[in-house]
Amino acid sequence: MANYTIGVDYGTLSGRVVIVNTATGEEVAGAVYEYPHGVMDTALPDGTRLGQDYALQHPQDYLDVLTNAIPQALSVSGIDPRDVIGIGTDFTACTVLPVKADSTPLCFLPGYENRPHAYVKLWKHHAAQDRANALNETAHARGEDWIQRYGGKISSEWEVPKVWEVLREDPQVYEEMDCWVEAADWIVWRLTGVQSRNACTAGYKAMWHKRDGYPSREFYEALDPRLGSLICEKCSCPVSPLGQRAGGLTPEMARALGLTPGIAVSVGNVDAHVCVPAVKITGPGKMLAIMGTSTCHMLMGERECSVPGICGVVEDGILPGLYGYEAGQSCVGDHFAWFIDNCLPAAYAEEAKAQGVGIHAFLRQKAQKLKAGESGLVALDWWNGNRSVLVDVDLTGMLLGMTLQTKPEEIYRALIEATAYGTRRIIQSFEENGVPVEEFYASGGISQKDPMTMQIYADVLGKPVKIAGSTQGPALGSAIFAAVAAGSGAGGYDTVQDAAMAMGKLKDVVYLPDPESAAVYDRLYAEYQLLHDYFGRGENNVMKRLKALKKEVQEKK
Amino acid sequence: MANYTIGVDYGTLSGRVVIVNTATGEEVAGAVYEYPHGVMDTALPDGTRLGQDYALQHPQDYLDVLTNAIPQALSVSGIDPRDVIGIGTDFTACTVLPVKADSTPLCFLPGYENRPHAYVKLWKHHAAQDRANALNETAHARGEDWIQRYGGKISSEWEVPKVWEVLREDPQVYEEMDCWVEAADWIVWRLTGVQSRNACTAGYKAMWHKRDGYPSREFYEALDPRLGSLICEKCSCPVSPLGQRAGGLTPEMARALGLTPGIAVSVGNVDAHVCVPAVKITGPGKMLAIMGTSTCHMLMGERECSVPGICGVVEDGILPGLYGYEAGQSCVGDHFAWFIDNCLPAAYAEEAKAQGVGIHAFLRQKAQKLKAGESGLVALDWWNGNRSVLVDVDLTGMLLGMTLQTKPEEIYRALIEATAYGTRRIIQSFEENGVPVEEFYASGGISQKDPMTMQIYADVLGKPVKIAGSTQGPALGSAIFAAVAAGSGAGGYDTVQDAAMAMGKLKDVVYLPDPESAAVYDRLYAEYQLLHDYFGRGENNVMKRLKALKKEVQEKK
Repeated sequence: MANYTIGVDYGTLSGRVVIVNTATGEEVAGAVYEYPHGVMDTALPDGTRLGQDYALQHPQDYLDVLTNAIPQALSVSGIDPRDVIGIGTDFTACTVLPVKADSTPLCFLPGYENRPHAYVKLWKHHAAQDRANALNETAHARGEDWIQRYGGKISSEWEVPKVWEVLREDPQVYEEMDCWVEAADWIVWRLTGVQSRNACTAGYKAMWHKRDGYPSREFYEALDPRLGSLICEKCSCPVSPLGQRAGGLTPEMARALGLTPGIAVSVGNVDAHVCVPAVKITGPGKMLAIMGTSTCHMLMGERECSVPGICGVVEDGILPGLYGYEAGQSCVGDHFAWFIDNCLPAAYAEEAKAQGVGIHAFLRQKAQKLKAGESGLVALDWWNGNRSVLVDVDLTGMLLGMTLQTKPEEIYRALIEATAYGTRRIIQSFEENGVPVEEFYASGGISQKDPMTMQIYADVLGKPVKIAGSTQGPALGSAIFAAVAAGSGAGGYDTVQDAAMAMGKLKDVVYLPDPESAAVYDRLYAEYQLLHDYFGRGENNVMKRLKALKKEVQEKK
Repeated sequence: MANYTIGVDYGTLSGRVVIVNTATGEEVAGAVYEYPHGVMDTALPDGTRLGQDYALQHPQDYLDVLTNAIPQALSVSGIDPRDVIGIGTDFTACTVLPVKADSTPLCFLPGYENRPHAYVKLWKHHAAQDRANALNETAHARGEDWIQRYGGKISSEWEVPKVWEVLREDPQVYEEMDCWVEAADWIVWRLTGVQSRNACTAGYKAMWHKRDGYPSREFYEALDPRLGSLICEKCSCPVSPLGQRAGGLTPEMARALGLTPGIAVSVGNVDAHVCVPAVKITGPGKMLAIMGTSTCHMLMGERECSVPGICGVVEDGILPGLYGYEAGQSCVGDHFAWFIDNCLPAAYAEEAKAQGVGIHAFLRQKAQKLKAGESGLVALDWWNGNRSVLVDVDLTGMLLGMTLQTKPEEIYRALIEATAYGTRRIIQSFEENGVPVEEFYASGGISQKDPMTMQIYADVLGKPVKIAGSTQGPALGSAIFAAVAAGSGAGGYDTVQDAAMAMGKLKDVVYLPDPESAAVYDRLYAEYQLLHDYFGRGENNVMKRLKALKKEVQEKK
């Protein structure tokens, strides 16, 4: 008899469900449910206008994913629902909401429908930037050690800047909430009826440390006296390791989903982090790049090292027993899409149409005929700032080497190469600071759809690139953690390692570096580095000055 | 009774004729004749293949311009041909050909039809680059003073590299020619039957100096022993000042053109240089920028100053009595055309079409809504290398400041701004080296058709921009020199100054700098300068390294 687990991946616009055979990793069925409210960035459902840089969500959408997509996937699969032994979930992060002690979101309460701060703040809600700035200043002024674990900088996307924003903008919401909770943990709470807090978001997004706990009460008081009690009053739930059973599925939920009450539900997790065991990575030195509109780099090490400019290091943050490191590039697929939208000449669009191929495919046809170095171009991949190594949102893009003979496909390829140099620079940073990177894996849309880009990465990094075997990496990863939460006794596994080896998947194809191209890219990367440091480390702050001037001019207009 | 002169402007692809009233400057008629052979860059008329970087022309085309366009313009004008008192001509330069002692081009001789080196080498024939390199090396090794007058570098386009190429590639052609002559002088020779040599091309293109003459015989011998006799044997014609009467129109030519025999023909001249009096410039400190695919800067000064990185300084080289300075930007209109061809998105092309406007006009509609500094972009205008100040063909373009919000019109405007910064940098170089630039004038296609660009130039330079009153600046200028050659006794003028004041023309519109924009552009220009020196003066030679790598990779392919 086969056993199955269900993985639920909560993305930015939809939830995705897969049902996975725990012995083979086979994905027997899947379903997608788009959030009816999507991302609310201009108005609440009742028409209340939202401010600049807002990005909210409606928690009902998350519940609707469960009750729509799970029954649908079960029905498609044809399996006996009684063979499902566990559920795992992953979420975007830091996506966070205020709730009552019984897990009811504040926005569900009468009188709060029109209060923006009663809703979920999505990861890309950026209205708390001034709070993040103030937080970083205070942390550095006080010489707080823990900030080094986050590359010296806390992001405006994380828990504390966002809750501080709530406190200042709508103190009543702050008062009324009993918990300030990651959506990743809230959905598990709804599934099990008991609250839990996962080590991943606690560590990466709430400055929690396995040995030292949270920053001190004094630190929070230094931010705002009313924040002194934040942790003990609103975030006091103990932190659980990843893969742990958070609880059993409630009878009510079991009924709604068509599953057996009491089956294991694993503690919450994050979409990028759950992808790691989904590609069979269970040990140190293997970097996974999840490549979509942006890229997230996951890496585990055996020691806690201070790596300047990374997003964070958290003990047990990816898999229990290892230090999880996270880094990122804020502009990858977005970069290529920008090029297509803004720079692709009409003649190319027409030719692609005439040939009946998509425009990305058409461009790749042309770009992949080029050899490394042939365009004479080099770019800095900072169209959306620099998220790792330099950690500076005010850096901007640069392209160099154009002549009157420069063709669009050469620019396109140069942008792809630039993102590969950016990844190599991150790897270099890890290695220079004591965290080895021996292997490189890629998952996410680009890894599946764009062989040319994968070959360029292999050539630029000088490493083989292994490719995720599933197009549903996060959901598969969540199903793996579900199998661990269920345990071997119930037909699952006792360790994430065992579950990953059985259920994780890689494609047969591996992109191997071409020695000739790699040698040329070594020379191009040296140029990238020179420019990276010249423009990124203060020798010429022209990018920041131009950005400041732009703002100044726009404000006068 | 009105008097008229005829100006003939020999461009790269056609000859243009205007008939001008000498009292008023009115252009009473014009005609254009396209060269039947155009630019021969792949094969001779008989199919003989040409080498890389060749650009030849057929001298018969130049004669056909006279016999076709002059009668046509006369017929359109309705004037009495007997009222025409002179003819003036101007040519691209250095455009040069081998001829016999009776002015017959070698390519007209039987047996030479299939010999590439028997034809005209057009200004943009670039196959003599290795000769130019060797010449520059020898000149510097020998400490030749005169090279300072040319910014320290002789171009491959000029007379000596080209004739040296002939000598090495086809010694028989070299032996057989009696004269190595600028097309500018050859056409005058054909009109008058007597040979003359104009001070402009002799000075700018053949290293002649009014007081010191040509470089020494020893220098030519150092290049190649066979070149020792070049000047005395093949270039010995005395040099005449501009505006001088070269001779009278021959009876045979007069018959062919429908004009009076014996009327004045002025000595040869160059298309850019003749534009100066056509905008009423007759004194020092007034820069004329002739803006087309590239820009040529003309300026006169009262002293001979050594200005690093300019194209040349020649006493009497523009107008008698002053030192003529020339500088240039190799990529202006070409730059904007590159953008349109390679970067303009399909959506914009469609929208322009739907609105029924041209694509440049459509882009300008969008770009002129932007304020200085609003795009956050800055570019280096080196898509075709740098012709003045840095004088380096191996420099390439750079664009900086892009974000995911950057729009095509912002890039377009940034490229225009970059060319304006390039012009400001040239002005700065003149002023730093003792040649004042008090006023700025523009002629050429861009000055006539693109008010936005003219306003940007005014704002970037912080100077009013005056605009040429004629769209046929060179032909008008040639007609002015013709009136001087005719002299006041025949109904013309005795000085170029007098003729320019009567016949030269400016538009009523003057583009005045907007103080607010100018202040922003001062800040942007400071950024341009920083980047100009960083990439252009050896601090980071990334552009040259990328170009060398590109060549290396292409050669292996």
